[in-house]
Amino acid sequence: MNIVVIGGVAGGMSAAARIRRNDEDANIIVLEAGEYVSFANCGLPYHVGGDISSRDSLLLHTPESLHTRANLDVRIRHEVVHIDRAEKVLDVDTPEGRIQIQYDKLLLATGAKGVVPRIKGIDHQAVNTLRTIPEMDSLKEKISQARKRAEAEKRHARAVVIGGGFIGLEAVEALVQLGLDVTLADLAPHVLPPIDEDLAPYLAEELEKRGVKLKLGVAADEIRGEENGQATVVFNDGTESRADVVLLSVGVLPRSELARDAGLDLADNGAIVVDEFQLTSDANIWAVGDAATVTLGTGGQASAMLAGPANRQGRIAADSMCGVKTISRKPVLRTAVVRVFDQIAAVTGCRRRELDEADVKYVTVRLHAPHHVGYFPGAETIHMLGFFSEDDGALLGAQAVGKAGVDKRIDVLATAIRAGMTADDLAEVELTYSPPVGAAKDPVNMLGFVAQNHLSGYSKLIQPEDIPDARSQGIILDVRNPAEVANWALADSLKIPLGELRDRISQVRDASAGKPIYVHCASGIRSYLAVRILLGNGLEAYNIAGGEASLRIAQKLGKL
Amino acid sequence: MNIVVIGGVAGGMSAAARIRRNDEDANIIVLEAGEYVSFANCGLPYHVGGDISSRDSLLLHTPESLHTRANLDVRIRHEVVHIDRAEKVLDVDTPEGRIQIQYDKLLLATGAKGVVPRIKGIDHQAVNTLRTIPEMDSLKEKISQARKRAEAEKRHARAVVIGGGFIGLEAVEALVQLGLDVTLADLAPHVLPPIDEDLAPYLAEELEKRGVKLKLGVAADEIRGEENGQATVVFNDGTESRADVVLLSVGVLPRSELARDAGLDLADNGAIVVDEFQLTSDANIWAVGDAATVTLGTGGQASAMLAGPANRQGRIAADSMCGVKTISRKPVLRTAVVRVFDQIAAVTGCRRRELDEADVKYVTVRLHAPHHVGYFPGAETIHMLGFFSEDDGALLGAQAVGKAGVDKRIDVLATAIRAGMTADDLAEVELTYSPPVGAAKDPVNMLGFVAQNHLSGYSKLIQPEDIPDARSQGIILDVRNPAEVANWALADSLKIPLGELRDRISQVRDASAGKPIYVHCASGIRSYLAVRILLGNGLEAYNIAGGEASLRIAQKLGKL
Repeated sequence: MNIVVIGGVAGGMSAAARIRRNDEDANIIVLEAGEYVSFANCGLPYHVGGDISSRDSLLLHTPESLHTRANLDVRIRHEVVHIDRAEKVLDVDTPEGRIQIQYDKLLLATGAKGVVPRIKGIDHQAVNTLRTIPEMDSLKEKISQARKRAEAEKRHARAVVIGGGFIGLEAVEALVQLGLDVTLADLAPHVLPPIDEDLAPYLAEELEKRGVKLKLGVAADEIRGEENGQATVVFNDGTESRADVVLLSVGVLPRSELARDAGLDLADNGAIVVDEFQLTSDANIWAVGDAATVTLGTGGQASAMLAGPANRQGRIAADSMCGVKTISRKPVLRTAVVRVFDQIAAVTGCRRRELDEADVKYVTVRLHAPHHVGYFPGAETIHMLGFFSEDDGALLGAQAVGKAGVDKRIDVLATAIRAGMTADDLAEVELTYSPPVGAAKDPVNMLGFVAQNHLSGYSKLIQPEDIPDARSQGIILDVRNPAEVANWALADSLKIPLGELRDRISQVRDASAGKPIYVHCASGIRSYLAVRILLGNGLEAYNIAGGEASLRIAQKLGKL
Repeated sequence: MNIVVIGGVAGGMSAAARIRRNDEDANIIVLEAGEYVSFANCGLPYHVGGDISSRDSLLLHTPESLHTRANLDVRIRHEVVHIDRAEKVLDVDTPEGRIQIQYDKLLLATGAKGVVPRIKGIDHQAVNTLRTIPEMDSLKEKISQARKRAEAEKRHARAVVIGGGFIGLEAVEALVQLGLDVTLADLAPHVLPPIDEDLAPYLAEELEKRGVKLKLGVAADEIRGEENGQATVVFNDGTESRADVVLLSVGVLPRSELARDAGLDLADNGAIVVDEFQLTSDANIWAVGDAATVTLGTGGQASAMLAGPANRQGRIAADSMCGVKTISRKPVLRTAVVRVFDQIAAVTGCRRRELDEADVKYVTVRLHAPHHVGYFPGAETIHMLGFFSEDDGALLGAQAVGKAGVDKRIDVLATAIRAGMTADDLAEVELTYSPPVGAAKDPVNMLGFVAQNHLSGYSKLIQPEDIPDARSQGIILDVRNPAEVANWALADSLKIPLGELRDRISQVRDASAGKPIYVHCASGIRSYLAVRILLGNGLEAYNIAGGEASLRIAQKLGKL
């Protein structure tokens, strides 16, 4: 049997290797348009920045090693230009000219292509992208030249990164590590668009602390060439940034032209439609990775654009192609993480935007909790959002930012989402605890407690952004201590420290006059206790989710 | 309503606070025999060692602060000596003499007591335990005196720790940090008895690297007083260790004398029998924490002796006592973790011993995997065991040791066990990945893959300890490279590097002569590929779980 795989990186190569494990006898051909197969593309920014010093360590395999290990026929510089589905023949451009290759079963792992925004002057030599080994080599060379030039001119080299997603932020970190002055621009109003605007400010603060100049909600209009190889990026807010190096990372799109031309079904975003076994609309063609659709938690279709799902899809496709019993896919969580200097940001499951667009009824839990017990030195705050179904309490999505323990909590929550766990389950889950490691009530448990309390009505939440509407119909009660109040407080709130609340309950009763009481403290714990006291005294009370910490973010975002 | 809680630390205080949140009007009395309530007992070793410099930070609450915050009537130095269940009256010894306190509902959170082994001379003044604030104060004082004495004598102070469980190891770390020469003795043949003997050697190595002298499988027979306040610990192997400070941490037992005298049902280990709502055999008495039973994954009854479960039981008991709808318990995983210098060891779910005793059919998966992608610098090996049901593939228990990423994986696996996840689920779970953080195929996924492959028959495992029996009926095939083989190899194994296996398949066929082939590499990945090649060539092959790394441990333990 002739099995042909188009694309020799994550998903394609995982599939090819698995097909060989399934079948010693199959004839497996991997066609890769580029020069490199099976390279560590997630590692590219780290080689640029110097964390990964050895370029070779990014080249996990060569055609030769894949032949030796898995008896694969891997052909680089082989670009498939046409699929003849009726005849099951591929037209392939090779260094020696066009050839034809016959297949019995075909896997499309064509990946993604970087979006090239319509910017005048985008083909200026200072402009780079960073998706392949040759692009990495070229970027490194240009940075090196820029640093030499800058040194001669007794200034720092300057870089402009356009696009503040995962790769953009990794590139910013790399460029700062190399001593460049970096400007980061994004069309979105906040960095790292996949995470919520409520968490992004913590990353923005970290970037600014490292000297990165942020231009958010701003598009590049033009890249103007300057003398000496430099460029000026002109933004649509009228500002300009001079740069020795410009890096474009404004997103990716499925590379599906071959599939489209062959008449396979494509989704709205251009991804190749596949079923739960990665089969396309052609019974002999499968697709995996960035080029293929995944099902989101909301039921929508999208592309994951992540290495983990690509590898797993490769496995599933391989098993399906070989008739091996396989595991059918569940909705893809698109768990992702990025290190931004001392901060880690991670996300899993449905994003808030997706839940809103799908009209899902959910509650947002906001947590600001130490990553291990506060009494052990070095506790770092994790800022966390959890989205829970108002219907059944299921965890739908979660995100977090902080200096430590972030990836651990998001991994636990990703596992919980896959398992269909609810707020009740999270409250009860037993995680590792010793003072240097965690807390007897881990942030994950706390997330569960808060959601439980809201969903059962034990202590209902109100969101910070709903305070402007709510405060006209009720009163705000601030149960922090005077020292905290002196530092920051909402105007017009009633201030009674938690410890005095029982003694001053009649004051609250008078002030609220039968109207709802919206309570806050620093992060939501004391206000929760206050809500229970108020409810126990027959008053109507709500806990402001995330307390002062979330209120201050809402204020910063202009929501209060 | 009069609610009385006996015991004012983790479980008891969690319950008391929750009862108040449930009911503003209840009269809640907390009786604590000691001087301190709600102290951070997990932090005691870290204050001794200096990580936690402030003693006050361990005192989370005082009777006054608990009155202010939760309107609790907390009475220290109140020791309950008798429960009259018929009259619902407690006899309580107080500094002012014996009093009686009436209850409507009673919660027993009497905790645990340290086991005092029968050792001659155990009441020597050099001997300490470390379970309370006063014991911590006393230990600190004795260490301080010992260091002065030793300094005057121009030697290091010496300590003997008897018992190498969680607390014992934390104490060893603290004593080494303070510059003492430390000997650690345990009756068990390996340190940290709750983890498997296959993982303990990694901790033993770390301890020895830090200069700790290990005496394993050895009991102390006598503590003999010496001049100058020192003691000599005499062991049953004939050796002796001189010590300025001796610390006993040989385990704990439920403190259930009150319950026993009151005629409540007790389990075999002396713990108070409770139902899923923490109710004892008396309809007005609940019990939580170290004194109460929990249900294990195997269905057996035990005590958890951990802060997390105690707190959650407190919540459940409080809700049950107040008639609030509550979450019924599931089997307790006893997730636990300990830092031992640069190593972290963690465990969750059923321990191997428990599975063996309960005759559960399970397979052990052994993993030695980097905590993040190998090509990013600083990757540390995680040594991991996972136990999966041979019946349905459910994960039953897991353990790991390593320098980084251990608690994260055990937290994910603890969540998976609670959710009833199987090998298939672990293979598919989507965890955070970027080069500094994880791997596209995380160790958790790898655990799932290996278990899946075994359970489906795709690549069956054989355990290292089964090799002595198996090798007489088959052959061992080592698919590592010559350089690795030169460094260490099993005698009499056939050595063929993976890359040459297809070309030399007839050699394997001849050597095996129809008998099974047991394959190993360094950690199990290349041998898995080899097994698939052999099976694909019609041969019978098994993968030796954990490869060279696990074989070497088995050798060390005398199993090979």
